[in-house]
Amino acid sequence: MSLRYPPTVERWCVFEVSLPGPSDGNPYTEQSVCATFTGAQETVRAYGFYDGDGIYRVRFMPSFEGAYTFVIESSFADAQTGTFAVMPASPGNHGPVRVSGTYHFAYEDGTPHFSIGTTCYAWTHQPDALVEETLATLADSAFNKIRFCILPKHYIHNFRDPVTFPWEGTPVSVEGLDEQSFLDGSWTPVRPNEWDFTRFVPEHFRRIERCIERVMALGIEADLIVMHPYDRWGFSKMTKAQDDLYWKYVVARFAAYRNVWWSLANEYDLMAAKAPEDWERYAAILTERDPYRHLRSVHNCLHLYDFTRPWVTHCSVQRVDVYKSCELVDQLRQRYGKPVVMDEICYEGDIDQGWGNITGQELVRRFWEATVRGGYAGHGETFLHPDDILWWSHGGTLHGESGARLRFLRDFMATLPTCDMRPAQASWDVPCAVPEGEVMRADPSFQLHYFGFFRPRFRDFTLPEGARYSVQVIDTWNMTVEDRGMHEGRVRVELPGREYIAVCLRAIRN
Amino acid sequence: MSLRYPPTVERWCVFEVSLPGPSDGNPYTEQSVCATFTGAQETVRAYGFYDGDGIYRVRFMPSFEGAYTFVIESSFADAQTGTFAVMPASPGNHGPVRVSGTYHFAYEDGTPHFSIGTTCYAWTHQPDALVEETLATLADSAFNKIRFCILPKHYIHNFRDPVTFPWEGTPVSVEGLDEQSFLDGSWTPVRPNEWDFTRFVPEHFRRIERCIERVMALGIEADLIVMHPYDRWGFSKMTKAQDDLYWKYVVARFAAYRNVWWSLANEYDLMAAKAPEDWERYAAILTERDPYRHLRSVHNCLHLYDFTRPWVTHCSVQRVDVYKSCELVDQLRQRYGKPVVMDEICYEGDIDQGWGNITGQELVRRFWEATVRGGYAGHGETFLHPDDILWWSHGGTLHGESGARLRFLRDFMATLPTCDMRPAQASWDVPCAVPEGEVMRADPSFQLHYFGFFRPRFRDFTLPEGARYSVQVIDTWNMTVEDRGMHEGRVRVELPGREYIAVCLRAIRN
Repeated sequence: MSLRYPPTVERWCVFEVSLPGPSDGNPYTEQSVCATFTGAQETVRAYGFYDGDGIYRVRFMPSFEGAYTFVIESSFADAQTGTFAVMPASPGNHGPVRVSGTYHFAYEDGTPHFSIGTTCYAWTHQPDALVEETLATLADSAFNKIRFCILPKHYIHNFRDPVTFPWEGTPVSVEGLDEQSFLDGSWTPVRPNEWDFTRFVPEHFRRIERCIERVMALGIEADLIVMHPYDRWGFSKMTKAQDDLYWKYVVARFAAYRNVWWSLANEYDLMAAKAPEDWERYAAILTERDPYRHLRSVHNCLHLYDFTRPWVTHCSVQRVDVYKSCELVDQLRQRYGKPVVMDEICYEGDIDQGWGNITGQELVRRFWEATVRGGYAGHGETFLHPDDILWWSHGGTLHGESGARLRFLRDFMATLPTCDMRPAQASWDVPCAVPEGEVMRADPSFQLHYFGFFRPRFRDFTLPEGARYSVQVIDTWNMTVEDRGMHEGRVRVELPGREYIAVCLRAIRN
Repeated sequence: MSLRYPPTVERWCVFEVSLPGPSDGNPYTEQSVCATFTGAQETVRAYGFYDGDGIYRVRFMPSFEGAYTFVIESSFADAQTGTFAVMPASPGNHGPVRVSGTYHFAYEDGTPHFSIGTTCYAWTHQPDALVEETLATLADSAFNKIRFCILPKHYIHNFRDPVTFPWEGTPVSVEGLDEQSFLDGSWTPVRPNEWDFTRFVPEHFRRIERCIERVMALGIEADLIVMHPYDRWGFSKMTKAQDDLYWKYVVARFAAYRNVWWSLANEYDLMAAKAPEDWERYAAILTERDPYRHLRSVHNCLHLYDFTRPWVTHCSVQRVDVYKSCELVDQLRQRYGKPVVMDEICYEGDIDQGWGNITGQELVRRFWEATVRGGYAGHGETFLHPDDILWWSHGGTLHGESGARLRFLRDFMATLPTCDMRPAQASWDVPCAVPEGEVMRADPSFQLHYFGFFRPRFRDFTLPEGARYSVQVIDTWNMTVEDRGMHEGRVRVELPGREYIAVCLRAIRN
């Protein structure tokens, strides 16, 4: 018996069994390992993976407490068994995030998840010191989801090689590569790529796992982007067999982390080498091999993915209109009948690209628009930096003004009886949310009106008959909440005549 | 011979012949008068009108210089003739505004008209002192077009009776009318309207004529709104015969003023008593009875009029989307093939209505969006005022920040070789205009890029091969123009990282 595994594990944490095996030949393609885990309330079959140095691992995330047994089978050893105990979840561990109702999210223990995401595409590929800086920034932020890529990124501001590569081999040389030669397409490498796509570099994946664990500890979901088009290494143009090997390896390594969300791609529609059936094939691998049914979506550039596909759990949207982004959330909800996450809506910054140079005010306005329309938005930041360290790709430190206001948004939402919002047509100009379940109710628990770039000096509200409501005026930019007393019938609410004001009316139940 | 008329008139000014006639019975319905004016280059038949006190008038706007004769005919006297001379236009008199090419405007003498309109619906119905204040504000403004109503306006902030009414009779009492009773529909007048719709009050129309003349002297076009829905007097619900009498009277009185544009309605689609065929009938009256072919359009609330109708000279648009207004100008140009005037795009102000409480920044942004997309925008202002004097209806004084920036826009446009702009697809994020006639030209005379709410720190431009361009960075809000030298090939233009910046590239021809 050469199995190694702990006697106990926390519910929704990673239980890992390792065993030694052959390191000769190509263990990634010639060997296989999997295990079946059985407790009183579930039986889960999980695929394992080769982690280098003659070690094979199978990971499992238990969804229940109590006694478990497992059987591990492999291509190189007899089946073996073991037992372990699943302990209660510790505080802060609420399980994986699931779709809640139709349009929202909650952790498996029922705790609501009001998603406030950010994007740092390549942060796990940076040197350790920068990774630590990013983690410190995240710890001090409002974010509870972070989007990032497994594969390295090749794009302006992203010409440095990653700290590790996912495959064994030699990367194309970067000599002569700069923004100009990138943009005008004149760069020709002096040394081509040489990769063995059948041999992974475990350390590349371990770095990502450490990052997944670290953000998990901060209560942050890891929205893993498995494929993307910004590539000089050929990783976006592998064969079907190479892709499938990669997908299976990724799912085997990462699926047991409770905070994982699957983003099949960033900007899938820019990956010219992939056809619609490729995406469906990756999805089939995911649905077969991720027994925990983590959230799944595909992020677009110009054309939304077909979010009606049954395996898509939520809409992960990059805005496709220069002027309207989160203003379309209610339409997207109607069209797809799934949660709408506006993951890319332009970033706060000052770079030369129109997707990365809006003000903090405009970014925060989009978050509130998404919120009162019953959806979720995503942050990003792209300020020019002397060392080309931009939050959007590299992480590091935030320089913008939106971060504090997103904290304010998250804190404000936590004061409501529910953060599951549904758009209610209260007026033609000002979007309004009520609790998701109460849209048909004449006297909803609250109404949250958001004025955006409108800046009236007052607004009249007609409160539901026979009900008393408290009135709050929220300055979403200056981060103040003013109580304006309790009212019945028709009430005129004086407003500051500035942009970015919300009014919250809360029912006082007797 | 009891005709009265001057011996000379300036080209494109009003030549008026008056003659006495019966004042008994109902001269408005029982008598008629018209005249034919003949010069070397035109023969024009014009309908006249009864102006009260036994005086009938026929007005004529000559389009050419030289000797003219006329014959005047009436239901009450023998035909009479006369002669007069048309003198050259004085400086500042460029004739009526016409459509120029497909998408733009020019005065009849060829001078371009870069339309910067404003709206003061009821300014001619205000007391004289306020009318004078409005004229003083206009004289000091960038506006070269003003939209206003012939008929009085009934709406919040507009409950005072006008100084004059268009018809003889008694208006409904205003007792008990206030914003609350207006909005909740609870107001019931204690004394109903009593009007004789066959008897006009000439002084009401004379006041308007004086205003048309005064703004003409300021170089401002009078965009006359003939009908509108905001009415407590029944003027929006007259019979077909009453409507037609009104339309003929209006055209007979106003058509000879060179600065008149016809707006058949403000928010035609809110006039529930009118059917599509009514609007076409009014248009038929206009095309028959306005021999000068003044510009004609119909302004909407929720649904654009069918601007493809042959008598519609240009699109007069109220934005129908809360978030996109002038951003749609290029689409509207394509759809209708006519000049696009975004006459109502929300007003700078702080009232409680979403159509009247945006910032000056946002209003000016919309003007520049309209401009670089090859269209035109309209201003309005709605700040709460202790005496309910809001520019949008009453005129008076401007309190906002947009006015100075619109002057800057107008002045900047005058520095370009042409103000006829055509949208050119230069990049996905930043709209760009080139001269209308040069869109197919590889090296247009200029490119005007407008960054709106984007705020990059720099932008790279690839200039047309073999051409030299001067570069200007325009801060459209802070009203500065910085010259950045002359360049060829690829040029990186440093930008201030603020919103509302434009870059103008001007070809240097040898």
